[in-house]
Amino acid sequence: MIDFPPAIQNLIHSLKELPGIGPRSAERITLYLLEETKGTKQKLVQSINEIGAKIKPCSRCGFYTEETLCSICLDHSRDKQCFCLVIHPIDVIKIERTGAFRGVYHVLGKKISPLDGHVPEDLPLSPLLQRIDEEKPREIILAFGADAEAEATALYIGQILKKRAIRVSVLAMGLPAGSGLEYADSVTLSYALSGRREL
Amino acid sequence: MIDFPPAIQNLIHSLKELPGIGPRSAERITLYLLEETKGTKQKLVQSINEIGAKIKPCSRCGFYTEETLCSICLDHSRDKQCFCLVIHPIDVIKIERTGAFRGVYHVLGKKISPLDGHVPEDLPLSPLLQRIDEEKPREIILAFGADAEAEATALYIGQILKKRAIRVSVLAMGLPAGSGLEYADSVTLSYALSGRREL
Ligand SMILES: [Zn+2]
Ligand SMILES: [Zn+2]
Repeated sequence: MIDFPPAIQNLIHSLKELPGIGPRSAERITLYLLEETKGTKQKLVQSINEIGAKIKPCSRCGFYTEETLCSICLDHSRDKQCFCLVIHPIDVIKIERTGAFRGVYHVLGKKISPLDGHVPEDLPLSPLLQRIDEEKPREIILAFGADAEAEATALYIGQILKKRAIRVSVLAMGLPAGSGLEYADSVTLSYALSGRREL
Repeated sequence: MIDFPPAIQNLIHSLKELPGIGPRSAERITLYLLEETKGTKQKLVQSINEIGAKIKPCSRCGFYTEETLCSICLDHSRDKQCFCLVIHPIDVIKIERTGAFRGVYHVLGKKISPLDGHVPEDLPLSPLLQRIDEEKPREIILAFGADAEAEATALYIGQILKKRAIRVSVLAMGLPAGSGLEYADSVTLSYALSGRREL
């Protein structure tokens, strides 16, 4: 039994390393690229090279940008006194897509994670604290998620921020929109209960 | 609401053009490539460039190779008097994976397809006929699949080949009717091979 020549096998192997791409999918994409004649290969190569060359963190908030400042930091209509603190750059997009936030962001870059060797002292808080001193936000939302590591991170940072007399909030926990009570675990349900609002 | 910088959007767009990659998957892969620091981007770019630069059709059979002849044509243990005629290079791999064929291949490159404007006269038969004259195979298996276009192609080529007093066979039914070779699993394909009937 024969297999593909090395160059083809290498591409299949490279594609398999990408998230969500299995062996079948990697082979299918490779064969598509082998047969295409419309410049898809070159466009793809150029796009991959360009994210490496052009994308950097915004010097103020840490979100992705091709300039010094990202388009959110440059947007004069945003509320610059309300910070949303997130772990990853992608979290910014997640929150932007809700359309429910008009402030600015700050990307922390990591959370407390004992398994990854990230203790509280490793959190890169200096740029955040310096920015707070300069921009004096009136509120900081900690948008870290509801897992144990995210909660530990929020607790630790919350204590530091409250010493500076800034209003600090965390995202509400409760039932996911559109899901019935029967799928909620008891921890979620207990948060939903204690965070109940009057109708 | 803000979106990603242009370079990121471009990569997401390029990835979405690949088969089996939807918008979510394209975004996930892009974010993975943005954050990775192990050289995955460079490896991927190099692999894509190399299939373009290194892979060409075998000068004898048309299968993928990096040399003049492919590894099947160079394999002395193969039965050079038994040809398996296929439409696409990937069909060679499909048949190889059954382990049920020890002859050699010839990749036709296209089939009769009125919708794509491929009439019988468009079939590139000259290289095949020249090869037949030189190598004098005792049998040619037409491994085209069981869709209407494949069957028309087999009928047309079968008539031409039988005039040359060559034994011509087609893959046995056992292929799911109406589907192309590209969807056949190895077991089905190996039944189809061993049950091939003479035209
Ligand atoms: Zn920014
Ligand atoms: Zn060959």
